[in-house]
Amino acid sequence: MSDALLHGYFRSSTSFRVRIALNLKGVAYDQTFRHLRKGEQRAPDYLKLNPQGLLPTLEIDGQTLTQSLSILEYLEETRPNPALLPKDAIGRARVRSLAYALALEIHPINNLRVLEDLKTRFGADDEAAAAWFRHWVAVTFGPLETRLANEPQTGAFCHGDAPTLADLCLVPQVINNIRFKVDMTPYPTISRINAACLELDAFKAALPANQPDAE
Amino acid sequence: MSDALLHGYFRSSTSFRVRIALNLKGVAYDQTFRHLRKGEQRAPDYLKLNPQGLLPTLEIDGQTLTQSLSILEYLEETRPNPALLPKDAIGRARVRSLAYALALEIHPINNLRVLEDLKTRFGADDEAAAAWFRHWVAVTFGPLETRLANEPQTGAFCHGDAPTLADLCLVPQVINNIRFKVDMTPYPTISRINAACLELDAFKAALPANQPDAE
Repeated sequence: MSDALLHGYFRSSTSFRVRIALNLKGVAYDQTFRHLRKGEQRAPDYLKLNPQGLLPTLEIDGQTLTQSLSILEYLEETRPNPALLPKDAIGRARVRSLAYALALEIHPINNLRVLEDLKTRFGADDEAAAAWFRHWVAVTFGPLETRLANEPQTGAFCHGDAPTLADLCLVPQVINNIRFKVDMTPYPTISRINAACLELDAFKAALPANQPDAE
Repeated sequence: MSDALLHGYFRSSTSFRVRIALNLKGVAYDQTFRHLRKGEQRAPDYLKLNPQGLLPTLEIDGQTLTQSLSILEYLEETRPNPALLPKDAIGRARVRSLAYALALEIHPINNLRVLEDLKTRFGADDEAAAAWFRHWVAVTFGPLETRLANEPQTGAFCHGDAPTLADLCLVPQVINNIRFKVDMTPYPTISRINAACLELDAFKAALPANQPDAE
């Protein structure tokens, strides 16, 4: 018996974030899939659920929720254990600032619809689109590595020794980087944290390769 | 006597969001300015405060906070009145989903450093960069107008009859649109809410044109 229905796609890193949160918090969920490359997220029945035509959408508690970061905050407010945000306001601000650096400064610029637009609008080929992707990763991963390496609040994970929203945004980005051949050598702290996350079943089960729609 | 120091720029819409929140919550603050077009956000002294070299940074309560959305959540947690999020989890999820549609799906793709990169990387001229800007506004403003026009929770503002995080993200985007000559005719609900916000002193005082560094 499931408590929720997630509309996602195996490679969608925003769906990946929500899968990790549901797994960590022990929410039983079913999945249905919208193949992004086939444009299934723009089908009329899906637009009724999610007018932006974006993934993911989570049906839970009789509600239909959109925008992955909003879904994560909702899950945290309604299912507080295990906590994905620290208790103190300063700690919460640090976690959110790390999460948003990833979720705002990389993913929106590098997602599929933007890369496709670069091709049609500016005639970018696959290699030019990949170079764009790697550029915006580097612009943010450099400062992020500095912060995570130098700030005392960093522990086994981005903030202390349990995963937070920041880790939920970090791992899908690192996994996404692999497809675009990002050199991770300059980011030893990020790589260490990513490896620590992937030791946990909640993260492993959420990996794109482990979804029923994986190709 | 000020309680906070905001490092911003008059035209920075992320700084604009924070100015509105500080004004609404009655936090006395000083401002210092980093001229984005002159690259002052990449000066070594600023990078110590904000390793990403992005605006804004808020110094408050003895802390240095980055990422505007994280700052807004911090202000809401530490200075809850007037509330910028509803009390119910579903309402909060709605407000955040509206805010994030604006803050994630438009602004990161359309900010100055991305537009400059389009010029150097793909040879885009000013008009091509403006067309890109308008495209990504339209992609999100269409569904946003639909949601705001049809969802019963919309009131005088995005959610009910008092401003929330969604309005704090909406107004700076609408003001930004003017410079790029976005036709607002298809968005009567967004325009109505924007006008209602700009009746409030907290929003008016935060307008780019009303900052000391306005050109």
